[in-house]
Amino acid sequence: MTTQSSTLKRIKKDEILDMEKRFRANFINSISGFKSVGLIGTISKDNTTNLAIFSQVFHLGANPALMGFIVRPDVSPRHTLENIEATQFFTFNHINESFYKQAHQTAARYEREVSEFEATGLTPYFEEGFVAPYVKESHFRVGLKLEEKHELSINNTIFLIASVQEVILNEEIIEKDGYLDLEKAGTITSSCLDSYHTTKRLDRLLYAKP
Amino acid sequence: MTTQSSTLKRIKKDEILDMEKRFRANFINSISGFKSVGLIGTISKDNTTNLAIFSQVFHLGANPALMGFIVRPDVSPRHTLENIEATQFFTFNHINESFYKQAHQTAARYEREVSEFEATGLTPYFEEGFVAPYVKESHFRVGLKLEEKHELSINNTIFLIASVQEVILNEEIIEKDGYLDLEKAGTITSSCLDSYHTTKRLDRLLYAKP
Repeated sequence: MTTQSSTLKRIKKDEILDMEKRFRANFINSISGFKSVGLIGTISKDNTTNLAIFSQVFHLGANPALMGFIVRPDVSPRHTLENIEATQFFTFNHINESFYKQAHQTAARYEREVSEFEATGLTPYFEEGFVAPYVKESHFRVGLKLEEKHELSINNTIFLIASVQEVILNEEIIEKDGYLDLEKAGTITSSCLDSYHTTKRLDRLLYAKP
Repeated sequence: MTTQSSTLKRIKKDEILDMEKRFRANFINSISGFKSVGLIGTISKDNTTNLAIFSQVFHLGANPALMGFIVRPDVSPRHTLENIEATQFFTFNHINESFYKQAHQTAARYEREVSEFEATGLTPYFEEGFVAPYVKESHFRVGLKLEEKHELSINNTIFLIASVQEVILNEEIIEKDGYLDLEKAGTITSSCLDSYHTTKRLDRLLYAKP
């Protein structure tokens, strides 16, 4: 038995509700732990590219290969959502240490006619036959197609389900059993709304059996 | 312009479909990036505790404070889902470096009457007035209440929405603006299905403005 519990504080729901709005946003955005984070690249019907950072991202299934994304309708990624609905396709680009500051900057509320690629100095890159722009600086890129959109009435967010169309990566990170060495790819993680972290692998563990 | 693109490989959907099943599971489970990972603690109506590792976890909203979880119905966490539906309450416990091997081991398919706490040597801990068990070894624990359950027909997974009832943490990790220093809490992250990583903060960035 450890004794560390006595040093921990229990903060209940009422106390969370009483927190100042910005304080609570930071606090609650921290509690899920480290996040999958990346840049979503889209293009509008009139060919304006758009790039926005997302960290409400998760694995949904391997077969079929699906990813999930939560979109807040009240912030600048609205352009992202409009473009995805218009074209059905988008890209998810991992963030490397070399451009995380530019990645974070895509969260600023640029006007619709401004491309976050130009505004932040990141480079759009198009693959043949795929309409949405990738980020050339990213060493790990996923091409996606919108499959379903669910409006979550509980807090007016939008849940997108997308199928994986292609993955663009350095072959050297693929291990024999399909595991991808994300550290070798340079992928970073985030926490809260504004914090970025590199990682260091502890271990890969064997398939758990009783 | 960088030239690294030429060294990257483009793997298309057909090639992913052709992958051997286990290879594809590892490959696709890697592409979302580093994950929020934790132990979900539950209790059954007849008072058997259950503990299971989950990495399909995400922030859903700060006000109201909500988290999302994806549950695969075809694997052992089925007991977790049954308990959550029976009692409405569960806990989400961050994983520290000191017990990540035990945390991983909770993924094994134990029989219903076996508590993963006992099987893995982790310690259940109950807070007054909260029915679900916390993990005493965890330095960061969240108490949750089930709000909504959505069955996703696209791949037969289940999407749970839960509201934050309480957070149990070391006060020293709370910064002035509500940001929680997860590295100070010892929280780790995961990738793929079996890989665990510590983190190192690069920086916190200012709120992005055009």
